Amino acid sequence: MEYKSINLNGKFKLFNDYWSPKIIGKINNYFLKAIKVEGDFTWHKHDETDELFIVNKGVLRIDFKDGYVKIKEGEFFIVEKGKEHKPFAEKACEVLTFEPETTVNTGNIRNEYTKENLDWI
Amino acid sequence: MEYKSINLNGKFKLFNDYWSPKIIGKINNYFLKAIKVEGDFTWHKHDETDELFIVNKGVLRIDFKDGYVKIKEGEFFIVEKGKEHKPFAEKACEVLTFEPETTVNTGNIRNEYTKENLDWI
Repeated sequence: MEYKSINLNGKFKLFNDYWSPKIIGKINNYFLKAIKVEGDFTWHKHDETDELFIVNKGVLRIDFKDGYVKIKEGEFFIVEKGKEHKPFAEKACEVLTFEPETTVNTGNIRNEYTKENLDWI
Repeated sequence: MEYKSINLNGKFKLFNDYWSPKIIGKINNYFLKAIKVEGDFTWHKHDETDELFIVNKGVLRIDFKDGYVKIKEGEFFIVEKGKEHKPFAEKACEVLTFEPETTVNTGNIRNEYTKENLDWI
């Protein structure tokens, strides 16, 4: 019996909406998510968890109150819990995140960017 | 202040030993690890945790008692906890794993493949 591996680029081809994380894998109580981003997100923080960002395509900038990071294709960055941040992408960008299944995309904030009950793709 | 993102290929250039996982990031109590693999590993299982494999370069085959999976560059696979498996790579292959910091590479087995007290790179 041949099990099927999952192609990351293939997952990103399945959707086109921005700032709407999709679940693509579950490791214990953590979700691996695929997100397409463009433009500005909202300032927020996650008091309970660190957050891993891996860029699959494009460039993701994350602003902090004391600086910023630019994450390019094939690069990653871990935002520590409690650190306020605002993701931004000048052009369409594909991002993988890894965080506990209970994590909400806007952390401590609830606004028009908040996505709950995420789809599995 | 500009924070530094981390380049995955750059991390893989820092070492050359096979089957010796290096820690490249920590998200809560989980480690992101980089591993170079070639040839056969040992049969084992992790009774306490699922294990995420993402292939950065090459092809990783994982044999199970009831089949196998081939994971190519840009693909991933999650081995469920308790499932016996044996990784194998015909040619040198670069793999990322994500699993709890307490996870030992050979799971329920201790043998010449077992690596503990992993290096951070």
